[in-house]
Amino acid sequence: MERIESPDAKAASNARERQSRLTKPPGSLGTLEILAEHIAAATGQSRPRLNRRLVVVAAGDHGVTAHGVSAYPKAVTAQMVANFLAGGAAINVLSDHAGARVRVVDAGVSNETPIDPNLLRLRLGAGTEDISESPAMPRRLAERAVAAGITLIEEERAGAGLDIVGCGEMGIGNSTAAAALIAAATGRPATTVTGRGTGIDDASYARKIDSVERALARHYATDEASSDGIGLLASLGGFEIGVLAGVYIGAAAERVPAVVDGLIAGAAALVAAEITPACIPYFIAAHRSVEPGHTATLDQLGLEPLLELGMRLGEGTGAALGITICVAACRLLDETATFEEAEVTDAANAVAPKS
Amino acid sequence: MERIESPDAKAASNARERQSRLTKPPGSLGTLEILAEHIAAATGQSRPRLNRRLVVVAAGDHGVTAHGVSAYPKAVTAQMVANFLAGGAAINVLSDHAGARVRVVDAGVSNETPIDPNLLRLRLGAGTEDISESPAMPRRLAERAVAAGITLIEEERAGAGLDIVGCGEMGIGNSTAAAALIAAATGRPATTVTGRGTGIDDASYARKIDSVERALARHYATDEASSDGIGLLASLGGFEIGVLAGVYIGAAAERVPAVVDGLIAGAAALVAAEITPACIPYFIAAHRSVEPGHTATLDQLGLEPLLELGMRLGEGTGAALGITICVAACRLLDETATFEEAEVTDAANAVAPKS
Repeated sequence: MERIESPDAKAASNARERQSRLTKPPGSLGTLEILAEHIAAATGQSRPRLNRRLVVVAAGDHGVTAHGVSAYPKAVTAQMVANFLAGGAAINVLSDHAGARVRVVDAGVSNETPIDPNLLRLRLGAGTEDISESPAMPRRLAERAVAAGITLIEEERAGAGLDIVGCGEMGIGNSTAAAALIAAATGRPATTVTGRGTGIDDASYARKIDSVERALARHYATDEASSDGIGLLASLGGFEIGVLAGVYIGAAAERVPAVVDGLIAGAAALVAAEITPACIPYFIAAHRSVEPGHTATLDQLGLEPLLELGMRLGEGTGAALGITICVAACRLLDETATFEEAEVTDAANAVAPKS
Repeated sequence: MERIESPDAKAASNARERQSRLTKPPGSLGTLEILAEHIAAATGQSRPRLNRRLVVVAAGDHGVTAHGVSAYPKAVTAQMVANFLAGGAAINVLSDHAGARVRVVDAGVSNETPIDPNLLRLRLGAGTEDISESPAMPRRLAERAVAAGITLIEEERAGAGLDIVGCGEMGIGNSTAAAALIAAATGRPATTVTGRGTGIDDASYARKIDSVERALARHYATDEASSDGIGLLASLGGFEIGVLAGVYIGAAAERVPAVVDGLIAGAAALVAAEITPACIPYFIAAHRSVEPGHTATLDQLGLEPLLELGMRLGEGTGAALGITICVAACRLLDETATFEEAEVTDAANAVAPKS
């Protein structure tokens, strides 16, 4: 397993000390100050600069779609991968807005995906097995998915360089897998963590809950129920969820803050935390999705989201906006003038400017 | 008075129709979709592009500071104006992050401010009168402040061009004036709308509430209590608050969405709405300040803020971040590929791609 260091308390206290000298009332930037200190601790830098930004969009298909749990056919997964590569999806727009590159991963898409330099074609399977009937994947494939995510981050860090990563996904049916993972990881019943995903009707929603409940019943009857994070992933997960779990672990090992998107990226964060809780301090929750399972996930991980914009798209769209906020917070810490530099009277510290 | 048109319902419905054809589940971008439609209605453009962005920071001093209502001496107002012009303040950092220019206005600062091409030196007075004792300013100066804000927007629109404006302020003591204005405009008692501003101690807070209560008692005893928005501004306002009220009115007249910052910019929005309620549909609330009077203001104006980040700095810092979100929302509407363009199966409209 990757060695993950603890956050750097000294870098955080240096950041806090600098915040107190900036030309603004103490604490007046609220969450932005806490966020900058959090990123200082994660990166080990007192004035972190988030210039090299990446959004990973991992895609995979899900056997459970056979039960009609989604509003979209599984062909859409490969179609959206092509859309990501062509730059036409919402995540392309928001990544560009955040100044982040997009890296697309075919973790296990059923239909063919293009040969493209911007696509990492892992293709660990043609979608997972139907989790309501059998484990999603063999344990060795779960391990390979996580290892591939770790490697991706190592390569990005060594190559183009990496200061912050946002984690997103695409996969028709993956909100069903995520609900099952969240139920198992948090101990909550299926009904409280299963939402309507892309926006399904009542009949599809009933089938979705039934699929999650059957997957959980099968899971709890196996040895994997008391197993580790890899076992959880193999039993209920998705290939793209495994890759993202690896991205989180790899990011923590490299001291790169990882911005968690919505429901499915959150489920992947739960898997990563089951594998190694040491990665949790490197998480930043971008937003609160309208999906009920997402709030359960944030609570379990002890995360407060930056944004609450009623989003439920996935792809890393919330994470990309979250990166925008992280960049703002770190730029404020780094670039705002101090009272001394600007010759402004610092009432809080009772220091008048020399003049 | 400026002629303000109603929002363009056709542009909004065109935007909504386009959203339904973009490669994402319907409604899955939540508030971002509503925001883009709102901006379409305001601008009259079905695919608004917010390329020319401005943050106005209006500064002014307040006679009520004689009572020790702030943690900072009034000299800080002019010092911070110099900081804005030097590019060292938090609003400079966040405006740059949002791709917005900053326009600084000396609406009525007590101390001398620099001659600088980026500073509009109105200097309507050396700070206001002490509102706990007498009206803030003569009615004719209230009219001049509002007119100057309208003119500023007309000139920006005709000059560099203007697609969106954020409204911020600086003025030691202006959270006291804002609390009085908000109490008078919403009918709430001083205690529920007066906060700790830059972070004052209990004794200063007691003096601040006392000052607001005395200002209100004086105000309600005069003819201005049943007067118009100009009368309200003259009685309880600030020069910078008047300029911002004019900016809101000018923006609405030019169909430019105006992003409202926190407590004081919100009080200015209340004044603008008292002068002409037709400007309200052009408001966008950037964030919810921790100041209690701000929530009262948002409620009165019927605004839902985009962000809730515990900010209480002013200067337009929340508005600048809000502009970032507005740009993201409009870029998503404008740039995301449609199902047809991307050849993605549109389950919601039961349209498969031609292939």
